[in-house]
Amino acid sequence: MSQPADLSDSWPRWCKRIDRCLEGLIPGATVSPSLLHEAMRYSSIGAGKRYRAALVYAAGHALCVSEEFLDRPACAVELIHAFSLVHDDLPAMDDDDLRRGKPSCHKAFDEATAILAGDALQALAFEILSEPDWNCLSPTVRLNLLSTLAGASGSSGLAGGQVLDLNLTSQDPALETLAAMHRCKTGALIEAAVLMGGLCATDDSATLTCLKNYAQPLGLAFQVIDDVLDGTVDTETLGKPAGADQERGQPTFLSILGEAPARQYAEELRDQAIDALGGLEQNAALLVGLAQFTITRSH
Amino acid sequence: MSQPADLSDSWPRWCKRIDRCLEGLIPGATVSPSLLHEAMRYSSIGAGKRYRAALVYAAGHALCVSEEFLDRPACAVELIHAFSLVHDDLPAMDDDDLRRGKPSCHKAFDEATAILAGDALQALAFEILSEPDWNCLSPTVRLNLLSTLAGASGSSGLAGGQVLDLNLTSQDPALETLAAMHRCKTGALIEAAVLMGGLCATDDSATLTCLKNYAQPLGLAFQVIDDVLDGTVDTETLGKPAGADQERGQPTFLSILGEAPARQYAEELRDQAIDALGGLEQNAALLVGLAQFTITRSH
Repeated sequence: MSQPADLSDSWPRWCKRIDRCLEGLIPGATVSPSLLHEAMRYSSIGAGKRYRAALVYAAGHALCVSEEFLDRPACAVELIHAFSLVHDDLPAMDDDDLRRGKPSCHKAFDEATAILAGDALQALAFEILSEPDWNCLSPTVRLNLLSTLAGASGSSGLAGGQVLDLNLTSQDPALETLAAMHRCKTGALIEAAVLMGGLCATDDSATLTCLKNYAQPLGLAFQVIDDVLDGTVDTETLGKPAGADQERGQPTFLSILGEAPARQYAEELRDQAIDALGGLEQNAALLVGLAQFTITRSH
Repeated sequence: MSQPADLSDSWPRWCKRIDRCLEGLIPGATVSPSLLHEAMRYSSIGAGKRYRAALVYAAGHALCVSEEFLDRPACAVELIHAFSLVHDDLPAMDDDDLRRGKPSCHKAFDEATAILAGDALQALAFEILSEPDWNCLSPTVRLNLLSTLAGASGSSGLAGGQVLDLNLTSQDPALETLAAMHRCKTGALIEAAVLMGGLCATDDSATLTCLKNYAQPLGLAFQVIDDVLDGTVDTETLGKPAGADQERGQPTFLSILGEAPARQYAEELRDQAIDALGGLEQNAALLVGLAQFTITRSH
């Protein structure tokens, strides 16, 4: 098993690649309709951890894919993530005014513009993977990327998870109900990110199964820690309103388990994720590093 | 030049094909999250003219593509259309309570569910064109379909057009401003539908240019007649609130031109569309029939 890689060199480089790539992919505010392009850029460039992009790069790296082939898949995943945050923050949904340390899209612009910016960010994710100019990967690989991403975005992924979340009863549900919701809402896109990095190298089913077995517990661990941070860290550090789950009477891993057992559960999930990488022959040190980060992060 | 085909046989068959195909593609209400799947089915199955699907089938027919290859592209176009209607009807946008003769999605369900059903319908459109099971067309053709559809859905298509529409000043704008908005809002998806039918057969640029030159005036003619119908036909016939444009103080081709000149403009556009088909060697009678329908339709 690989030792966790130090990510202090790679991660900032990935963040820069994503921002530079998105700068080129989203039309500037000088292109009509400028209001929409401004809202799309506001919601996707220059902020965010780029955790999902990092997973694309790290999974690709484990299978020796060079970063230039991974830029678009990583951007596409980040566009879908940005779109889902814009819609989740809307008044009809979570009604959050703060995101990534600045006003949410519907506060900075207006509700209609935010809905449409989200819609256009989603469309752009699929456009950048399908457009004829981007032909460094084979058509079959690109279809696999598109199919994986579309599946993670739809009714069995992000959109489905958000519906389940909005309809959770405020009574504490079973841990399994909560986990099932988060497997769609957070887990599906995290899994897609890892798989998409792998798909750029191979369609070997044993390799993809390893990656899936890494990504699934990782996605859950990510959410467990998200819940812990929401209830224990201040708004400034989070970049979004702290305590929002509790205020909404939302059941969370923190409210059901308590902090120490929740952190322990996340550690077990991290271990499962790292164990799954044993099936990969290649260098998985960056993926191990990301699993470690997932449970030690402070925001 | 082909004579217009009688569509009374083809069109109802296409409608049935679309409904049957969508029935199979959208998970049933027994699949979790059932609320979301119910809202997706409510908004996309069993209603609507299927005008855009008809364009896919007719363009494919002109180039001798059999209907079974056209079902998914036609469904994908209808899913994008349904998604855009669900979002356009939201309170933050056009705030319309009636659609296709029944309550809009956010009235039948709620606002959050409608936003998410729209999101999931958009994702599904891209999923059904990219998933590995559907392999009757080559990967390159499928990428071209995806790229064309994503382009029509995003910031230079539907989403962009809706932003332009919401920000039109209530003073009468120039005819060209109105046309530019509708080229995005209505025209882009109509053009994509025609091109997608063609792309299933060929990537020959002369043929695709003919189809584009047919689709562009057709899309504008469709919108001119839409505006005329909105201002002159009753709600029951329309299946959506009549006079909504006027109530919103929305400038339209009817308000700028008046009814008779608007209808005459639509006829000129129809003639341009039909003329463009002269460059096609194959049988374009169904496309001619659809151009004729576009300006004579009553709803």
